[in-house]
Amino acid sequence: MTDKVRIEPRSGTAFRLARGQVLTVIDPQGVQVSDLVAYNADDVREVISNGRTFDYEETIRLTAGHQLWSNRSNPMLSIIEDSVGLHDFLLTPCSTATFEHFYPDKPVHRGCFGNLAEALLPYGIGEDAIPTAFNLFMNVPVDGPTGRIEVIAPVSTAADFIRLKAEMDLVIGLTACSAYSSNGGSFKPIDYVIG
Amino acid sequence: MTDKVRIEPRSGTAFRLARGQVLTVIDPQGVQVSDLVAYNADDVREVISNGRTFDYEETIRLTAGHQLWSNRSNPMLSIIEDSVGLHDFLLTPCSTATFEHFYPDKPVHRGCFGNLAEALLPYGIGEDAIPTAFNLFMNVPVDGPTGRIEVIAPVSTAADFIRLKAEMDLVIGLTACSAYSSNGGSFKPIDYVIG
Repeated sequence: MTDKVRIEPRSGTAFRLARGQVLTVIDPQGVQVSDLVAYNADDVREVISNGRTFDYEETIRLTAGHQLWSNRSNPMLSIIEDSVGLHDFLLTPCSTATFEHFYPDKPVHRGCFGNLAEALLPYGIGEDAIPTAFNLFMNVPVDGPTGRIEVIAPVSTAADFIRLKAEMDLVIGLTACSAYSSNGGSFKPIDYVIG
Repeated sequence: MTDKVRIEPRSGTAFRLARGQVLTVIDPQGVQVSDLVAYNADDVREVISNGRTFDYEETIRLTAGHQLWSNRSNPMLSIIEDSVGLHDFLLTPCSTATFEHFYPDKPVHRGCFGNLAEALLPYGIGEDAIPTAFNLFMNVPVDGPTGRIEVIAPVSTAADFIRLKAEMDLVIGLTACSAYSSNGGSFKPIDYVIG
């Protein structure tokens, strides 16, 4: 198992995760979000897909026992343990455009989207290939009858975590989220371990 | 305005839609689904995004007054009229893999995914670039607390329609759906008009 790696507030990273390896993502202080994307390391045009995942798992709330599927209908990651049970797979990473839209009076940040774009570039993955992310710990209640969604503070507390097993060789992108509403207005780090 | 064009059951097509043009998609017999995808005609790497749309529209139920957004945070289509009000933007087009998964005892069909892939190829759009589609008339109730989804018969009746205005020059992919559960077990045509 690797040492614990820290993703500093409002930043992101990318790394390889071999088939069979387990990625543990930890919210060290609680109430923080981490955007996760995954690509087939052998052909990065294969990428996690919220639509395929919702189809096969028959739910939009993914937790232990569920898999994250690719646009080619292959399992990419299995959620094997989850101390929170509340994540989002509906929304795209925050970006300069979302900062301008939602926070017109606040400083613009490149957001998780910009952080992922920079981190994924060495793997030959361009901005347009960043899909709807699996947003760990993100709390997005959906009102079934109307479809209305809102972004509220995560229910995660310090040291909460999720563990995902790689079902193929992957390139992972991972952030400590930069948006105001997704983490209750504060910016905090995210930790991860590969084992 | 063009003549009405028919998409035969279990087939699909692709065409250009210029900025300002209005696409009317009609369910001529009722209880049928049509998968719609859209690309920037000048750069097909820009594509409709359910995640960006959910973000900006703050709902997963899109109807008249809402816009469909691209992965680059630009509006692609505005819904200007909608006689049904119930569509899906969660699920990916049916495919050989989804037929094998959901209907193991029935003949496999290439589905909307295969139909879209063939129709979009002349525009330089490959299979991996087919996103989660905006599934017109598709009825996918979501249970808010559990996240469970199901696919049930559309509420559309004969001659129901949706009208969408192009906000940029687009390539549109459009199908008459091939899956069993999405259309109440029957396969019917879809009509469209460009005006």
